[in-house]
Amino acid sequence: MMKINIVTLFPEMFVPLEESIMGRARENGLLDIRLINPRDYSTNKHKKVDDYPFGGGQGMVMTPQPLFDCIRKNELDKGKIYYMSPRGDVLNYEKLREIASLSEATILCGHYEGIDQRVLDEFQVEEVSIGDFILTGGELAAMVMVDAATRLIPGVLAGESSAVEESIYSGLLEHDQYTQPREFQGIEVPEVLYSGNHGLIDLWKLEESMRITLARRPDILREFLDREENWKNRTKAEKKVMENYRQLL
Amino acid sequence: MMKINIVTLFPEMFVPLEESIMGRARENGLLDIRLINPRDYSTNKHKKVDDYPFGGGQGMVMTPQPLFDCIRKNELDKGKIYYMSPRGDVLNYEKLREIASLSEATILCGHYEGIDQRVLDEFQVEEVSIGDFILTGGELAAMVMVDAATRLIPGVLAGESSAVEESIYSGLLEHDQYTQPREFQGIEVPEVLYSGNHGLIDLWKLEESMRITLARRPDILREFLDREENWKNRTKAEKKVMENYRQLL
Repeated sequence: MMKINIVTLFPEMFVPLEESIMGRARENGLLDIRLINPRDYSTNKHKKVDDYPFGGGQGMVMTPQPLFDCIRKNELDKGKIYYMSPRGDVLNYEKLREIASLSEATILCGHYEGIDQRVLDEFQVEEVSIGDFILTGGELAAMVMVDAATRLIPGVLAGESSAVEESIYSGLLEHDQYTQPREFQGIEVPEVLYSGNHGLIDLWKLEESMRITLARRPDILREFLDREENWKNRTKAEKKVMENYRQLL
Repeated sequence: MMKINIVTLFPEMFVPLEESIMGRARENGLLDIRLINPRDYSTNKHKKVDDYPFGGGQGMVMTPQPLFDCIRKNELDKGKIYYMSPRGDVLNYEKLREIASLSEATILCGHYEGIDQRVLDEFQVEEVSIGDFILTGGELAAMVMVDAATRLIPGVLAGESSAVEESIYSGLLEHDQYTQPREFQGIEVPEVLYSGNHGLIDLWKLEESMRITLARRPDILREFLDREENWKNRTKAEKKVMENYRQLL
């Protein structure tokens, strides 16, 4: 059971965490999500939680008192604390695996201008970014991180799906997908996919994945081809395709 | 007024788009969000919308019929169509500005294994990724994109805030933020910030931003220092700090 505490001024935004795989993980006792509103801990008579930044500048900054009290009274500092921020390290598979291996984690969601630095320093908070863009608050970023991390908690995905997940993280972009019907409004599925020849199908999937990865993310293709384990258990034809793409890089 | 159509099997997840800046933009008539469920367009008697992938593999793929009909009947193909997918180009400021400049855009949210490629081909759908991680569906990614893009629609943010936004996108990671009280549990705000000396404060902010950017994202610092316009209108002291950091790269 992993416990995730989310510290947010907008707990009503977290409806998406009730859906689908996250909802099931919670029902199955694999994930416990607790929403905590720092406003409830404000000692200000108007329950104020922010103020103007020292040194001037746009926007408001979350004050230290409600966050210090909220963290201490709930003993959130017993576990790791993250803060969603465009200044943080960009979220990737390594970081997600680290999060999914914890028994308890806390995520702070801030406003645009952020929270008082003394909170981050005092509790050794780690800043994490989901990408190079500005969001209105940390709430959506927190949900993205919780969704992606939940999928890596053992038991959340069925065995085979988690193997697929693993291969996507260590590998190439996905080939095109096709499903029923074989012909739709005159457009047909590539013939090889219903040939029944599994060797040919696997070769097609590999080649398509490499074609798309070369076009969109050559950085990922290079990493894939540099990794020795990706050359193991390959047929002669597959190795030839991989050699060809190495030439194209 | 920008119109955003979101095609999703889980319209009830989109509660976060009612909050804060996005909620206000909708109330003020700057943003119109329409949620469309492709299941409503399925001609299958059980309203089925997915099926097994051709060529084998894990998971299900969304079938072409409900999406073709949903797109055509709502004339969504009059505007640009995006599809949230880890195969897409990674979302950045350039892409967000492009989206925010459109009068109408549609975002398709898929399941994990994706949607039939014929949909993407037929409607010249552009794939966009919010990062190198796997989410359960495209819904959270779509909300992230809508939030970040909405902030760039003219009139949504007040004048000064949008200037700040601009500077963050073209510049450095933010310096630490501090607000009231000046001393909290014995920890003080850096003295310079309440010195009243604006030249010194600006220099402190620049130096702190550069220190943090060097430590966390040297790629961004390099870009910043390479851009000629960032050297204009700088004091001698500021230029010296910038020179020093160029040495450290």
